[in-house]
Amino acid sequence: MAETARHPEPRYGTRPTMKDVAARAGVGLKTVSRVVNGEPGVTPDTERRVQEAIEALGFRRNDSARVLRKGRTASIGLVLEDLADPFYGPLSRAVEEVARDHGALLINGSSAEDPEREQELVLALCARRVDGLIVIPAGEDHRYLEPEIKAGVATVFVDRPAGLIEADTVLSDSFGGAREGVAHLLAHGHRRIGFIGDRPHIHTAVERLRGYHAAMADAGIDVRESWVSQGATDPGRVAAAAEAMLAGPEPVTALFSGNNRVTVTVVRVLARREDHIALVGFDDIELADLLGVTVVSQDPAAVGRTAAEHLFRRLEGSGRPPARVTLPTRLVARGSGELPPA
Amino acid sequence: MAETARHPEPRYGTRPTMKDVAARAGVGLKTVSRVVNGEPGVTPDTERRVQEAIEALGFRRNDSARVLRKGRTASIGLVLEDLADPFYGPLSRAVEEVARDHGALLINGSSAEDPEREQELVLALCARRVDGLIVIPAGEDHRYLEPEIKAGVATVFVDRPAGLIEADTVLSDSFGGAREGVAHLLAHGHRRIGFIGDRPHIHTAVERLRGYHAAMADAGIDVRESWVSQGATDPGRVAAAAEAMLAGPEPVTALFSGNNRVTVTVVRVLARREDHIALVGFDDIELADLLGVTVVSQDPAAVGRTAAEHLFRRLEGSGRPPARVTLPTRLVARGSGELPPA
Repeated sequence: MAETARHPEPRYGTRPTMKDVAARAGVGLKTVSRVVNGEPGVTPDTERRVQEAIEALGFRRNDSARVLRKGRTASIGLVLEDLADPFYGPLSRAVEEVARDHGALLINGSSAEDPEREQELVLALCARRVDGLIVIPAGEDHRYLEPEIKAGVATVFVDRPAGLIEADTVLSDSFGGAREGVAHLLAHGHRRIGFIGDRPHIHTAVERLRGYHAAMADAGIDVRESWVSQGATDPGRVAAAAEAMLAGPEPVTALFSGNNRVTVTVVRVLARREDHIALVGFDDIELADLLGVTVVSQDPAAVGRTAAEHLFRRLEGSGRPPARVTLPTRLVARGSGELPPA
Repeated sequence: MAETARHPEPRYGTRPTMKDVAARAGVGLKTVSRVVNGEPGVTPDTERRVQEAIEALGFRRNDSARVLRKGRTASIGLVLEDLADPFYGPLSRAVEEVARDHGALLINGSSAEDPEREQELVLALCARRVDGLIVIPAGEDHRYLEPEIKAGVATVFVDRPAGLIEADTVLSDSFGGAREGVAHLLAHGHRRIGFIGDRPHIHTAVERLRGYHAAMADAGIDVRESWVSQGATDPGRVAAAAEAMLAGPEPVTALFSGNNRVTVTVVRVLARREDHIALVGFDDIELADLLGVTVVSQDPAAVGRTAAEHLFRRLEGSGRPPARVTLPTRLVARGSGELPPA
């Protein structure tokens, strides 16, 4: 990764503890605890020394550890990009289950695909003393997280890599999955295949389009500009893109849809037509089995579980350098992807 | 409501402010701020007076107000019961949009339908200084929330009412919706109609079963015990229940499914059969239009929006007594509910 050169030694620091503060101030642990918790029984002079040690060390009270001692639980934060996208349901639940196995609560929030809001939410969760973070990033610059990571907030990025920092990352194989899905359509005789994807600044959208181009190149096909459409996944935009590709003198005979939101609309567009256009979609969707929709399926629960397990290994003290894990996708043939060209 | 007698005057208190502390301690606001934030420049005697005022008033530093002053945002918490249930996607997103309109962040968590976990999560969010809470309750006793509500944490219950406390509540008309859905099947000639619902301790499950019984009673039909099945919504349990009702000497000719999770499985069971069993489901599901599934549709976005608007009116100082809002449902005929008896 390009970032490696800029951060030759990513330092995964640990937060200074009350013990460190006590040692530096030359007082007992109980005295530090009294100062931190605003309890009485400390002379002003001692309090001053403790406060100086706190500031010198950059100590922040670890509320999670504190609530743990009180019999309540630690917490991790999960930042999604769209609360209404069903892809995140099983992902979130898997993270929650791992968190629960580790005695931790999960707190979620959504960036609504807005980098500023992502940063605001991430820092709000850090200010609320989450022990760790799982982030599906909306932004492309995560240097704002470096002080938190160095202060010991374990962080794992999911679905899309972190921008400009080194961090643990769990991805699905968007490139490989899209390449396999398009190759599947090619194997069923299609040559004019359309690609409808998400907005081009999104990592997964770029990777899936790259997979489409790779499969088409493998088959020796020159991709026409009109066969590729990237943009918002709202039904209006997607339906117009699909209909444009299906019209004209050389219409596509098959479509590859870049994610679940796109697929849902393309399925509706194709259901209104008399002809039988082939379709492979990236991501599975509920009831796609009954509708016979062939998909390249990610396993969102496995993605969430893997990310959460990485996070807890980090929280348990793993000092390994940040790693990137890419999970495989799976082609599920159900009929729509096996139709021949009309 | 029965609780009214026990709490004749529900007091929606407001949190004591730094100003109250300053007035009581006879010091300036800046001095209180210094003590609260652990800044230097306060004599031990003054600090003692401020601490006494803090304790006497039960003042808690409002971190949200503090971050607001720093140009960051306040926050509200939303506690769901299942992160993987697509019903909560649009509900959460609607809450988030209202929160954003009010300059607040939304933090989510899931009880996983466990009352203890609900309480743990709610209190964890309160400890992390959310300004308000929207709760889809898993438990039936919310007295643990009374101190928080009295301390000024505005709270709205959604989808199911609060237990043993008075609180703002936003519900869908589960009773009326189920009654209308079952009446729709009766109007299409069915007499033997099965009901498959969620676990019987869940408020919406009880209300929907009550709607079923009301519609059947309206039609003068004695409901057989074998026509009603309540329990977990996992596919195995639901499929077995549906198949049992469709077998035997007097099988049902129509099914009413009590929520989206049940409907998805019933649709699969019916798709495997040769005959044409009628179906009306409570809750809409994605792509139900293409599958021709008739539903009683709630509007989860409207439920979330209404709840969030109530919450922010409360946060803006509304002192009205707690209210219960019930939103209407809508029958959407798509084919499966209009089939005649086989």
